[in-house]
Amino acid sequence: MNNLVFKQDRPLDIIPIGRLAVDLNANEIHRPMEETATFTKYLGGSPANIAVATSRLGLKTGFIGRVADDQFGRFIKAYLQDSKIDISSVVTDYSGAMTGLAFTEIKSPTDCSILMYRENAVDLMMDIKDVNEEYIKSAKSILISGTALSRSPSREAVFAALELARKHETIVFFDIDYRPYTWNSVGETAIYYSLAAEKCDVIIGTREEFDMLEMISNPGNKDDDLTAKKWFDHNAKVVVIKHGKAGSYAYTDDGEKWSVTYSLLLRSRRLEQEIPMQAVSSTDCLKVSLRQTL
Amino acid sequence: MNNLVFKQDRPLDIIPIGRLAVDLNANEIHRPMEETATFTKYLGGSPANIAVATSRLGLKTGFIGRVADDQFGRFIKAYLQDSKIDISSVVTDYSGAMTGLAFTEIKSPTDCSILMYRENAVDLMMDIKDVNEEYIKSAKSILISGTALSRSPSREAVFAALELARKHETIVFFDIDYRPYTWNSVGETAIYYSLAAEKCDVIIGTREEFDMLEMISNPGNKDDDLTAKKWFDHNAKVVVIKHGKAGSYAYTDDGEKWSVTYSLLLRSRRLEQEIPMQAVSSTDCLKVSLRQTL
Amino acid sequence: MNNLVFKQDRPLDIIPIGRLAVDLNANEIHRPMEETATFTKYLGGSPANIAVATSRLGLKTGFIGRVADDQFGRFIKAYLQDSKIDISSVVTDYSGAMTGLAFTEIKSPTDCSILMYRENAVDLMMDIKDVNEEYIKSAKSILISGTALSRSPSREAVFAALELARKHETIVFFDIDYRPYTWNSVGETAIYYSLAAEKCDVIIGTREEFDMLEMISNPGNKDDDLTAKKWFDHNAKVVVIKHGKAGSYAYTDDGEKWSVTYSLLLRSRRLEQEIPMQAVSSTDCLKVSLRQTL
Amino acid sequence: MNNLVFKQDRPLDIIPIGRLAVDLNANEIHRPMEETATFTKYLGGSPANIAVATSRLGLKTGFIGRVADDQFGRFIKAYLQDSKIDISSVVTDYSGAMTGLAFTEIKSPTDCSILMYRENAVDLMMDIKDVNEEYIKSAKSILISGTALSRSPSREAVFAALELARKHETIVFFDIDYRPYTWNSVGETAIYYSLAAEKCDVIIGTREEFDMLEMISNPGNKDDDLTAKKWFDHNAKVVVIKHGKAGSYAYTDDGEKWSVTYSLLLRSRRLEQEIPMQAVSSTDCLKVSLRQTL
Repeated sequence: MNNLVFKQDRPLDIIPIGRLAVDLNANEIHRPMEETATFTKYLGGSPANIAVATSRLGLKTGFIGRVADDQFGRFIKAYLQDSKIDISSVVTDYSGAMTGLAFTEIKSPTDCSILMYRENAVDLMMDIKDVNEEYIKSAKSILISGTALSRSPSREAVFAALELARKHETIVFFDIDYRPYTWNSVGETAIYYSLAAEKCDVIIGTREEFDMLEMISNPGNKDDDLTAKKWFDHNAKVVVIKHGKAGSYAYTDDGEKWSVTYSLLLRSRRLEQEIPMQAVSSTDCLKVSLRQTL
Repeated sequence: MNNLVFKQDRPLDIIPIGRLAVDLNANEIHRPMEETATFTKYLGGSPANIAVATSRLGLKTGFIGRVADDQFGRFIKAYLQDSKIDISSVVTDYSGAMTGLAFTEIKSPTDCSILMYRENAVDLMMDIKDVNEEYIKSAKSILISGTALSRSPSREAVFAALELARKHETIVFFDIDYRPYTWNSVGETAIYYSLAAEKCDVIIGTREEFDMLEMISNPGNKDDDLTAKKWFDHNAKVVVIKHGKAGSYAYTDDGEKWSVTYSLLLRSRRLEQEIPMQAVSSTDCLKVSLRQTL
Repeated sequence: MNNLVFKQDRPLDIIPIGRLAVDLNANEIHRPMEETATFTKYLGGSPANIAVATSRLGLKTGFIGRVADDQFGRFIKAYLQDSKIDISSVVTDYSGAMTGLAFTEIKSPTDCSILMYRENAVDLMMDIKDVNEEYIKSAKSILISGTALSRSPSREAVFAALELARKHETIVFFDIDYRPYTWNSVGETAIYYSLAAEKCDVIIGTREEFDMLEMISNPGNKDDDLTAKKWFDHNAKVVVIKHGKAGSYAYTDDGEKWSVTYSLLLRSRRLEQEIPMQAVSSTDCLKVSLRQTL
Repeated sequence: MNNLVFKQDRPLDIIPIGRLAVDLNANEIHRPMEETATFTKYLGGSPANIAVATSRLGLKTGFIGRVADDQFGRFIKAYLQDSKIDISSVVTDYSGAMTGLAFTEIKSPTDCSILMYRENAVDLMMDIKDVNEEYIKSAKSILISGTALSRSPSREAVFAALELARKHETIVFFDIDYRPYTWNSVGETAIYYSLAAEKCDVIIGTREEFDMLEMISNPGNKDDDLTAKKWFDHNAKVVVIKHGKAGSYAYTDDGEKWSVTYSLLLRSRRLEQEIPMQAVSSTDCLKVSLRQTL
């Protein structure tokens, strides 16, 4: 159990916030990308895929984010809409910023790699103005993911969303989802992840990600109980700490601790392709939380 | 009265953090700068002048900040040292960043203007690494001023100092001191001022500055009592709201409210020159707080 | 006829210089890119395609340019090498710059569009140091294309190549190939195109491109004879001015003028796909010039 | 003698182009700047000082350049106007760029140093649009100095002026005046200095500066005769090569060579302060050239 209380009178169940991108997956597998000839286009971005997953689960889903004024931007908007996601807060950007791309290749059953195009990425152009107070108030929960904190003005937009969510008692999920390539330094990451985490109800990350959040305040700590307690002292009610194959644990602010296993995993489109996805475990935890309460 | 509790067993009374700069004041007054021929050099930067003032008041004073590796940087370090300020955390920067300059002119008894040089300003190069946990722990209080929040990496360094101050129960003074020229947008300012203010014990600003802090969470509010209460709900014990000639009020978290008048003003070097200084009122409030408790 | 004299004792016939990129062509044609699902990867960049074409024609071909240290960079190097192009001056860049991408779609038999990724493009990282004097001296000719002039340090590398080519009497082909998206302003383009053209032996462009070259010195001129004469007064021996369907004319410095028609066109890989290519007409003119003299 | 032919029917004798700045000279000499208390303001920038000197010599003088929209910008414009210099092409810039500053100190009779403020310097915002064809045509000569070539858009504005000067047979003086702090690399400097020098009638520099101009085309050359010949093959009629105390030599395109001595030096305001000035020797050479022909 936990003490999450979702406001029942809200039309939307969840609003993921942040990255909307395009993945281009190599069609020829078991060879390096140098030798692949064709790529297939998918919706990319961890919060984007979570949105699709929650919508398929039957949750009323919205989104806050930016897309480019080009073919890929229109593809993303159409894909979200086809997935029955409300796109009234998906803003088309006219600054010339580009859709982020991820080219993926499957070199072997155990080795895959990604080539990222993140220069002047449009998702990081999300602005405070894109965050509508009424929209945040219309949802039971929002979900932020770490990459949206990596650059201005997207970073400030996330903090605005967090402030409005606390004001209106909209539950906040934080999928830490650390991707080093968009950050200037580990210290910078530690600062903003920590400031954001203080305002969240559910925090989901690996042990290494939580180490980063504690880099300034408690460097070197490896004690999950101590970690969970730190965030309970702020606003957290559930803290999920992932240890890879060693299993993941969800701590709740009423003192419980339970194991989260992959048997609960969502079967997303991506999963069905047997591409390992970071998004999966977070949507899983999300599902666990939502299951109990929505 | 208020509930500020300063840790008495600390060697330093206060550590201002942030801007160290050079002021170049026109010697010929009552004419525009176009016609002034000579300028006299002074230490500049609101926290720098507060440090000099607190040291003259007899408080054991330190500083955290960056200076350029040039003649102006060496001048600043020497000036602080001559003022009996501990400079062990004043870091010389080798990135090529420049000392901020402010050319001031007195056009008439009621009209003065400032020409700022703030491109690639060295004080904004202050880094998380410059913030030493033991140093923060060795002081009864730190003082941050708003400009240090306006750019990275200085912004992150301030948040690191705030986190360490809370960890070690070092009292935090926040002189909002809003200067629009170093910020990208009002929204960005609102976000970071608000995130910082949540972690401070004493917050000092004009009514307009507090409006900015509430821009996201409570736009349009002009009620000082409501404003003070908002920050008491976080960590504040004293909130000083200045209304110019209409007077300034200090609110304390035990429900008191008292008027702060200019008769209590510090007589700083700058004041003796009869140059009106924003720094004055904040050092004033600081003095009021410190008087009661140190 | 013309007065081009190629040094016969050189091991290489031609060294194109500049853009090496990746094209991703939509496989599903006659629909907008929003609806295409798969893309096929090709070598991109006008000088890159000219190099492949001249090598297939049997000319000994080299290249000067930069590729990224990633899968696409390795693909490009391998493709050039498989095409029997000398890649000893194709430099791998370690700055983090990215391979330029062009997504192309065929919307209808008469409408195609391109989505470019040119942020921090690696081809524009070509440096003066990449231009080897002995290499320029080892070739009968070099070919520069306009995009390489659009940004530093690539711009300076091109001017270094031009200076060395003049010193060693290596013939210079200039394919103006104006692409507005990589330039800051039309005036900037006019300046550098003009400075480069003064040092070239063969200049190939549309009437509009030549208008740009004369924007400062002779604005408003539409007289092809006058245009050709201007460049003959510098170093040009052949000036090719293209008028689209109205035909293209080659002017030579001995007073001749002849029509260049598409019946002489090279059949490149790209052409065989029936994708209209700007590269075609320039290789055509190149072939005409080379035919007579090599 | 030389073959410079000045068009006699022009209202202006000379138009210097480029840097307009402010110098702040330490009043207390024979001590480091750390200890100086006051500074006196002067007009700064080599072409600016040349303009003042030529105007005092009685030459009709204009100027092309940019000043900031602030107190220093207005001071510069007023100073030029008081010096009877035509300021119709001195443009006020509204981009927020700042007047360049040079703080100078005299440490000892043989040691002086300069602290430069050149971040976002307004003189380098000079734009092609600031260069008026009729204005260039109205002058016997223009003078460019090297710093204006160091950054865009000033660099392109200089090349536009050179193109128009050649078109209208306006004589071009080039004071190389190399200042490393505004350039990205020596190679970049070599390229643009060389492209500019090709279009100039009179080129003035130190042996080391000419080495830089020949870095690509003839590295290692130390032979002044060879250097002079290189530029005569382009458009130069006079080449002045300075060797410090070993003396300076002026080469003319009719085969003469004469020694230029400091006895001919202009007595500028700056000189009278006994501050050694790089500007002096160039105005000297200029005077020698002008004396013979204007």
